[in-house]
Amino acid sequence: MNTPKLRAAIVGSTGYGGVELIRLLASHPYVDVTSVISSSSAGSPIAEGFPHLTEIRADKLDDVDPALVSEKADVVFLATPHGVSMKLAPQYLEAGLKVIDLSGDFRLKNIEEYRQWYKHEPASQADVDRAVYGMCEIFGDEVEGQSFISNPGCFVTSAVLALYPAVKAGWIDPDSIIIDAKTGVSGAGRGLNLSSHFSEINENFKAYKINKHQHTPEIEQSLARAAGRPVAVTFTTHLVPMTRGIMSTIYASQQERRSAADFVELYRQFYEGRKFVRIRPNGQWPATKEVWGSNYCDIGFNVDERTGRVTVISVIDNLVKGAAGQAIQNLNLVMGWDETLGLQFTPVYP
Amino acid sequence: MNTPKLRAAIVGSTGYGGVELIRLLASHPYVDVTSVISSSSAGSPIAEGFPHLTEIRADKLDDVDPALVSEKADVVFLATPHGVSMKLAPQYLEAGLKVIDLSGDFRLKNIEEYRQWYKHEPASQADVDRAVYGMCEIFGDEVEGQSFISNPGCFVTSAVLALYPAVKAGWIDPDSIIIDAKTGVSGAGRGLNLSSHFSEINENFKAYKINKHQHTPEIEQSLARAAGRPVAVTFTTHLVPMTRGIMSTIYASQQERRSAADFVELYRQFYEGRKFVRIRPNGQWPATKEVWGSNYCDIGFNVDERTGRVTVISVIDNLVKGAAGQAIQNLNLVMGWDETLGLQFTPVYP
Amino acid sequence: MNTPKLRAAIVGSTGYGGVELIRLLASHPYVDVTSVISSSSAGSPIAEGFPHLTEIRADKLDDVDPALVSEKADVVFLATPHGVSMKLAPQYLEAGLKVIDLSGDFRLKNIEEYRQWYKHEPASQADVDRAVYGMCEIFGDEVEGQSFISNPGCFVTSAVLALYPAVKAGWIDPDSIIIDAKTGVSGAGRGLNLSSHFSEINENFKAYKINKHQHTPEIEQSLARAAGRPVAVTFTTHLVPMTRGIMSTIYASQQERRSAADFVELYRQFYEGRKFVRIRPNGQWPATKEVWGSNYCDIGFNVDERTGRVTVISVIDNLVKGAAGQAIQNLNLVMGWDETLGLQFTPVYP
Amino acid sequence: MNTPKLRAAIVGSTGYGGVELIRLLASHPYVDVTSVISSSSAGSPIAEGFPHLTEIRADKLDDVDPALVSEKADVVFLATPHGVSMKLAPQYLEAGLKVIDLSGDFRLKNIEEYRQWYKHEPASQADVDRAVYGMCEIFGDEVEGQSFISNPGCFVTSAVLALYPAVKAGWIDPDSIIIDAKTGVSGAGRGLNLSSHFSEINENFKAYKINKHQHTPEIEQSLARAAGRPVAVTFTTHLVPMTRGIMSTIYASQQERRSAADFVELYRQFYEGRKFVRIRPNGQWPATKEVWGSNYCDIGFNVDERTGRVTVISVIDNLVKGAAGQAIQNLNLVMGWDETLGLQFTPVYP
Repeated sequence: MNTPKLRAAIVGSTGYGGVELIRLLASHPYVDVTSVISSSSAGSPIAEGFPHLTEIRADKLDDVDPALVSEKADVVFLATPHGVSMKLAPQYLEAGLKVIDLSGDFRLKNIEEYRQWYKHEPASQADVDRAVYGMCEIFGDEVEGQSFISNPGCFVTSAVLALYPAVKAGWIDPDSIIIDAKTGVSGAGRGLNLSSHFSEINENFKAYKINKHQHTPEIEQSLARAAGRPVAVTFTTHLVPMTRGIMSTIYASQQERRSAADFVELYRQFYEGRKFVRIRPNGQWPATKEVWGSNYCDIGFNVDERTGRVTVISVIDNLVKGAAGQAIQNLNLVMGWDETLGLQFTPVYP
Repeated sequence: MNTPKLRAAIVGSTGYGGVELIRLLASHPYVDVTSVISSSSAGSPIAEGFPHLTEIRADKLDDVDPALVSEKADVVFLATPHGVSMKLAPQYLEAGLKVIDLSGDFRLKNIEEYRQWYKHEPASQADVDRAVYGMCEIFGDEVEGQSFISNPGCFVTSAVLALYPAVKAGWIDPDSIIIDAKTGVSGAGRGLNLSSHFSEINENFKAYKINKHQHTPEIEQSLARAAGRPVAVTFTTHLVPMTRGIMSTIYASQQERRSAADFVELYRQFYEGRKFVRIRPNGQWPATKEVWGSNYCDIGFNVDERTGRVTVISVIDNLVKGAAGQAIQNLNLVMGWDETLGLQFTPVYP
Repeated sequence: MNTPKLRAAIVGSTGYGGVELIRLLASHPYVDVTSVISSSSAGSPIAEGFPHLTEIRADKLDDVDPALVSEKADVVFLATPHGVSMKLAPQYLEAGLKVIDLSGDFRLKNIEEYRQWYKHEPASQADVDRAVYGMCEIFGDEVEGQSFISNPGCFVTSAVLALYPAVKAGWIDPDSIIIDAKTGVSGAGRGLNLSSHFSEINENFKAYKINKHQHTPEIEQSLARAAGRPVAVTFTTHLVPMTRGIMSTIYASQQERRSAADFVELYRQFYEGRKFVRIRPNGQWPATKEVWGSNYCDIGFNVDERTGRVTVISVIDNLVKGAAGQAIQNLNLVMGWDETLGLQFTPVYP
Repeated sequence: MNTPKLRAAIVGSTGYGGVELIRLLASHPYVDVTSVISSSSAGSPIAEGFPHLTEIRADKLDDVDPALVSEKADVVFLATPHGVSMKLAPQYLEAGLKVIDLSGDFRLKNIEEYRQWYKHEPASQADVDRAVYGMCEIFGDEVEGQSFISNPGCFVTSAVLALYPAVKAGWIDPDSIIIDAKTGVSGAGRGLNLSSHFSEINENFKAYKINKHQHTPEIEQSLARAAGRPVAVTFTTHLVPMTRGIMSTIYASQQERRSAADFVELYRQFYEGRKFVRIRPNGQWPATKEVWGSNYCDIGFNVDERTGRVTVISVIDNLVKGAAGQAIQNLNLVMGWDETLGLQFTPVYP
């Protein structure tokens, strides 16, 4: 194309979400990253903290200043912690930028749920109302042409893509849903704490935030849209000694007995034409490595003939489909482009 | 003690179960390992295949011959694959040896279940009937003085210790039980196949044998004793990129609402005096590394206030409490010794 | 471009080298992979053995038959073990295909060295003479327009790129060179053996083939071109519990005292314009993860002020720059294209 | 024995060295750990920070106060950072305690070297002179009956055990020694920094402190005793994505040509009767996992027939033989006990 490229700024470029946006956008045909931003490290070269970017990005980190950002960019990605995005997003919107926020600040439409689960003062209801929730394969139609997108959570993406069609079809009992989720360590970010310490995590497997994870109400918000009524799920998260990858192993009771093959068929129809959701053939379940480094969400099924329960296995790369990749997919939808633009990576295997 | 030590032979000494028996028994005050046995490698020094035993065990591997074994040993541990134990155990028993079998061959009292789940011809009902199932902390009373013990499966140990007291007390609905289990790779043994290949497993998390794992009926057999009626559970197994450790994350509906603290109290009473089951304080859940290299099974609880479901987290070292350690614990019980003899290892951390 | 794309076939598509070629070539603007080939699995869908390719490559594996391959492709990559390439390459050449061979069969110009180090009968001297050795940044000029390229070994690439400029400049004593190399496990391929078994390799570090690795004479062959005389190096290889990555830590005595900054300068000049060799600033050394998934070779220096020895640290991704990536780079050079075409991946971090 | 056990206190019980002392001493027949000490966490239960000690150690952490410690203990282990030990050791000695210091504060007899390499003010020369350097298998004779032992560094133990006999025998040129060392991450302790962050270290291999590591002069101090003259070595350290283990790959030129078998013989004679040094048979090299969790140092050799250089491979568990294990071995020597008391662990494999 001969038209100038869209200029993108990335706030939070010293974190894993930000640096993954840099990696992925480097291959995007219609986007240029014109500003990498970090309030804490402004002024130092980004390759100093991330030497893998040596000779790839020579620029220094910019400050978060909205005036500056709006001069250099058309769209800004906020790869910032919750509590930070809620301050920055309105300023960038006011400065005329499109905003794609990767934090949890604008995902929950009920701000009381935010207060309760995040243990933090929510953004204003007005700001939350402006944000469009960008679960691409499900609510993607609502994204086109918008200027403020709230990008879904990593666990949420994995769980909702795996559950939405079955709940929508009324095939499973929403009250029976149990989501046993497992994540690689990069989901916890680059900050320092004992639960990301190599010697504590290597050769270890642990559960955390049992029935307390802040992604719970976000999962339920989407499932409620499918069910047409409130839904409460049981949701447990575990830490796997690996860097990337999320698996959700999901259990639910069926409303009436169907086979795994029936589920394969239902989901293939539901996700028809959506390239990033791959429904595995009956009898095959995905492993996290099979989507590593890519924007795919792979889903497989099993039905326990004895109890009638269905098991759904869903995997994503938490930093791609669970964060930076889906954010770019949302930008593609905002711009009316093919949603796969710049995202057609083959998973890295092995 | 001045009486001679008990002489032990280990069949399957070139596998992980066998070599772990060698490691653990080296510290046992009343037992000497007098013969290490391998049908496939008989005649070669054990330290050749396991160089970590250099200068620790200079002996060569013996053959499985019952006459030979009964000359050299008083008790024989069978760390052999299923299908092999069923042939060897009767011969060793006939030769006058005590037998502790670590395989699945004699665990299922209903041999039709064996046929169905192991896809293999079962041992004779008579042989199965002679074997005492050695889940130490639950059915340990039945072990003392016996000469033929069937050692429980690794997943089974983790799941049944975590469920038995609650099922027995009638606190949870047996039909609601879902066991989401995760294991390190050593559980698959030293044999070569793609699912133990480093490049396939490292930085990967995968599910396998969904609703098909042969430990399912073994779990149900014990839970049925607790419930006083047949029980069917949903059981899924996953492979974690680590060497040792099993976690079972278990979900169940309560018969009436109780708190996690209630469960802590119930289990502490149930396991009173049993040193290897550690019930964690309310609000704390165990990680696999916290029992690594030891014979402990640690258990923690959470109750989801919204759905009422209880979550039980249970961890073991699959090669110790899940295999060699519990086998030695069973020998201790057989001999009427303190069950902790030779097994009081502090977990290796980190 | 409107001209039709170059059609590429990949022999050995069920191995890691082959599947990495598939991944990388999927992004190449001028190349289409028109045939994936495996003698052992011909007829079955490639996504069966590599489920990460689900919906990416629907085709079945072809047989190695030269007539068939020459119909479907213009160039063939041989990601085959040594001993196999020597049989296939001449047939494909005769069938009019360009051949890029990733095995060791045509790298050593002295076939007696092949016999000695590979413990295998060499290819004919005539066939070896036809092959052009494609160490791109050093001997790349010899590649353009050729039809038969021998792609360098993984360790060799890492070592020679790190040593050639200093040997050429006469700054280090060629007889003093010691290369202490470390590799991830994927270098050993997808075949099954105990040294790729997860439980044996995880949480383990081991040396292998000390002074015996078949890449030794290949390293020396290139260094001899730099030195203008025969060179013998001390070369040790180690296995690291990770999937991808090679580091060579190289020690040499200087002919006269120079600083690390001098080396940085010398190498920057030598590799001027070669995008895939990144010379790190003085005082900074690369880690393997900083080139993970990319075609970069990063090099850093230190001089020990007390002994005068120089230490050179060089890292690559063994499957990219050490195999599939450099093979594509060679194809680019053969075709007269920009050598970076289709290879401009940002390393995946973390 | 009927005499009361020796009472031991451990300062630094919230670090990895301290907690490993607790694990190992739990099996020591003549020692009771009567006080676990941490200045930072005094008053809180040790099992709070280390849940693997649940029901194993119920006690709370004590303060460092010398009067208190001397009441509760006979010997104190200092598993404290350098800079801290130099303050505490003299106070504990004065209070009548035996002191075994695991830090670097008293290892270098030349305090100027300490200043230069540790970038820190040294302990007084008088205090340094009182400390006996406890490299058990080499200088162990000097330890018996002493009350103040300085325990060697982890890398140092691995390197010096591997080099001392050959230097002493005059078989290798001391000026040619290059030590390429690799360590697991636990060597860096439990403190939080980016180089122990899981996502940064997993699937990564990196060099650090090239020619700058503070263990360099400590290695040279012992080798100088062997050589009878000052020695300067080239020493590089690397971080391996694993928790425990050190390998030193050591290169040296021979004074005259000898075979690997000659080295095996020389070392076996030198270490005759020292159970924790295992010289591997000619042609076999140790891997770190083969000493994991144990007090062994395993050593193997190769001679490059072309260059005449000898390669020595030496492995230890950095937290056992490289820290807590050797410290207990030193206590055994101090007390005149068998040096293997309480340390006869079989390596944990796999």
